[in-house]
Amino acid sequence: MKSWIASQRERIQRDYFTFLKFPTIGVNPKCADAMHACSQWLSKQIESAGLRSELIPTSRFPLVYAEAGEGPHTLLIYGHYDVQPVDPLDQWLSPPFEPTIRDGKVFARGALDDKGQVWYAVEALRMLKGKLPIRVKLLIEGGEEAGSEGLYEALPRIAPRLKTDSLLVVDFDLLDAQTPAISLGARGLTTMEIRLTGSNIDLHSGMHGGLAYNPNRALAELIATLWDKEGRVAVPGFYDEVEEMKPDGLTFRFDEETYRRQFAIDRLGGEQTRTLLERNWLRPTLEINGLSGGYAGPGFKTVIPAQATAKLSCRLVPHQDPDTIGKKVKAHLEKQTPRGMQLEVTLDHGGRPFRGRADSPLARALSDAYHEVMGTKAARILSGGSIPVIADLLRYSGGDVVGMGFGLAEDNIHAPNECFSLDRLEKGIETLALTIQNLARTR
Amino acid sequence: MKSWIASQRERIQRDYFTFLKFPTIGVNPKCADAMHACSQWLSKQIESAGLRSELIPTSRFPLVYAEAGEGPHTLLIYGHYDVQPVDPLDQWLSPPFEPTIRDGKVFARGALDDKGQVWYAVEALRMLKGKLPIRVKLLIEGGEEAGSEGLYEALPRIAPRLKTDSLLVVDFDLLDAQTPAISLGARGLTTMEIRLTGSNIDLHSGMHGGLAYNPNRALAELIATLWDKEGRVAVPGFYDEVEEMKPDGLTFRFDEETYRRQFAIDRLGGEQTRTLLERNWLRPTLEINGLSGGYAGPGFKTVIPAQATAKLSCRLVPHQDPDTIGKKVKAHLEKQTPRGMQLEVTLDHGGRPFRGRADSPLARALSDAYHEVMGTKAARILSGGSIPVIADLLRYSGGDVVGMGFGLAEDNIHAPNECFSLDRLEKGIETLALTIQNLARTR
Repeated sequence: MKSWIASQRERIQRDYFTFLKFPTIGVNPKCADAMHACSQWLSKQIESAGLRSELIPTSRFPLVYAEAGEGPHTLLIYGHYDVQPVDPLDQWLSPPFEPTIRDGKVFARGALDDKGQVWYAVEALRMLKGKLPIRVKLLIEGGEEAGSEGLYEALPRIAPRLKTDSLLVVDFDLLDAQTPAISLGARGLTTMEIRLTGSNIDLHSGMHGGLAYNPNRALAELIATLWDKEGRVAVPGFYDEVEEMKPDGLTFRFDEETYRRQFAIDRLGGEQTRTLLERNWLRPTLEINGLSGGYAGPGFKTVIPAQATAKLSCRLVPHQDPDTIGKKVKAHLEKQTPRGMQLEVTLDHGGRPFRGRADSPLARALSDAYHEVMGTKAARILSGGSIPVIADLLRYSGGDVVGMGFGLAEDNIHAPNECFSLDRLEKGIETLALTIQNLARTR
Repeated sequence: MKSWIASQRERIQRDYFTFLKFPTIGVNPKCADAMHACSQWLSKQIESAGLRSELIPTSRFPLVYAEAGEGPHTLLIYGHYDVQPVDPLDQWLSPPFEPTIRDGKVFARGALDDKGQVWYAVEALRMLKGKLPIRVKLLIEGGEEAGSEGLYEALPRIAPRLKTDSLLVVDFDLLDAQTPAISLGARGLTTMEIRLTGSNIDLHSGMHGGLAYNPNRALAELIATLWDKEGRVAVPGFYDEVEEMKPDGLTFRFDEETYRRQFAIDRLGGEQTRTLLERNWLRPTLEINGLSGGYAGPGFKTVIPAQATAKLSCRLVPHQDPDTIGKKVKAHLEKQTPRGMQLEVTLDHGGRPFRGRADSPLARALSDAYHEVMGTKAARILSGGSIPVIADLLRYSGGDVVGMGFGLAEDNIHAPNECFSLDRLEKGIETLALTIQNLARTR
């Protein structure tokens, strides 16, 4: 394998750079042409790697879908070609869509997330071209950073193709630069917007002060009811479905002192009666992601605003259902809304958490491959984050799920100067190819 | 008087329109030239009305200052030539700086606040040109809508000129279209900005959810401590200096049903144990004028923000001091700040409340003039709002203060389609001229 990679090194890098040059910011309407062009280019690349590829149209951007190989196992590989926005642009040391190598690292938006990880998958399949020992399906979507709208909508239509023995999500991290990790799950997510209305127009805080009830005050009072003194979510029934799970075999690499220094954090949040592993991986959370009411710009405006709003999200763990949790939070908010305020709650679609088994064929095949390539046993981890569509994809697959990845915390995903090392890109090619070969031997 | 006004009607309106055409939005840097041009034009108009006028430079915009007349009383008239911004511009039926008459009303930014009220003062003085029975001083500033920075700074320099028997503030309202009112005071104001910091950068609410303590949550919890269950401000010592005052002789024109219907308000706020007159005029308030934290735009961003901020203001009543109250609120916030959050409080300069005597020479002279012009006895009112600089001006004057005005709630000051009626403009000329004549006869 290493010799194939060495012989192809220049071409691999050239094609990877071409992939990175498409400005595929899915949420930016100006990037729509680039999204379509990129999906077509990627589909052709996958064809040239020996798969039958097609573009599946959606109301948003096309899914790139491909198949090849026959064998005792059917593997579905999921990734995405859309990337995060690039703001603040002035903090980039080189333009985000002009890949630039510094110190063996490629700097570009999407260098890792997720074009880099998709790219080692494509090259692994190219290396195994004509000799794939299992059936491989590739599903690369263009909407992950924007809620996977197009994929959700297409799922029922493409259901038969998704039925597979296992699902590999190439959108995760290593434990550290030396230690690989298999990701055995991520939390689910449900989001909502809260709006409190006190009057039909903004009121002058002098003329109306003492008469009108201020929605900013009411919103603060309402939000403050959402947790108890120990940081537990105070929404009735919030923890009802939460599975008490022992973190057996999981590696939680977290040094509180380092973490607090890195982010200048004085005191940790979350449920004070739980371990940090539990708080981050095994327990659900409720966060206020946005607060807004009245005038918050420079200077001062003495206003009693007509409305105040908050954006709220919950991270979910097995077996919490996004809709059920959304409704419980809404019911709590309705009950606690201060008298005189009108509450509107808009529940958005969420995603369920997912979990994989550490002893599934894919988990074992990937662990062995990681071990061989990196020389270190793969840790088992979970993610505190969410890829909402995975739980649904898994339902259609019916198989086991594992997350793989070569990301590191210092790769700056979703931030300026995102990067990925060429060394890890090549290790990704090897690891994925070995995983496929291992799968042919497992049952 | 009526015949003079009738003979001058066209010119009065023409000059008033010229005054309104200057886009004197003091807070908009693009309007700086217009501010200077307007002050020069106004000064010349005042000269032509028979006063010795001069422009007093400040670090912001010039003060227009003028004097004329001799007699047993010295009256200082205060107004301002700067106006509020015009956003949202698309809601104006005619351009804000192109005065347009509809239904006998002049629509323009500043039509009432405060160019309209300044204009009837200038015309009243022109009408009495050469026969002023008292000494009149005019002080028209260009910074009222932005905190009177230039005037505050100039006060010590111009102190000798401010020493007067009485101070008339032409920036107030009628009780209703038929009933005049003399304003015997307004509340003071102190403002501050609160910032809670939890970390040095925004954190991903999945990766960090359960570990990091969210400043949005902490801010809500902190703000919720500011009032008790009955709407009293819970800051220790907040009410210590408040004078318990009987509202004798004050007319509080307020119909709760109408008010609630007009503003679609379900339930009134403020101190539930106090009357509405007390809440709006005689009691201090604490309001959150702005809330901001995390992502509040369209869509959703799953962020635990580094910081959350609030803008807070208090309306003050005699004998509360803005600095003392600011410090008490700050001390409460410091004590209540959730552990792990770093609090910054920025206290802004405030202004003291002011009160006038109902039996002062100016109050009696104005009441009699109102009665003669409108045929109805003038009510005595207070204002829940603030003109912070007045208390300071009053300290330099050493005399009594009264607010006069011809505004109505439906004149849309600080809002699109501000207006003032030509009929009330003329009544203003008459009322102010009569007040000056009456003052010559009072002691």
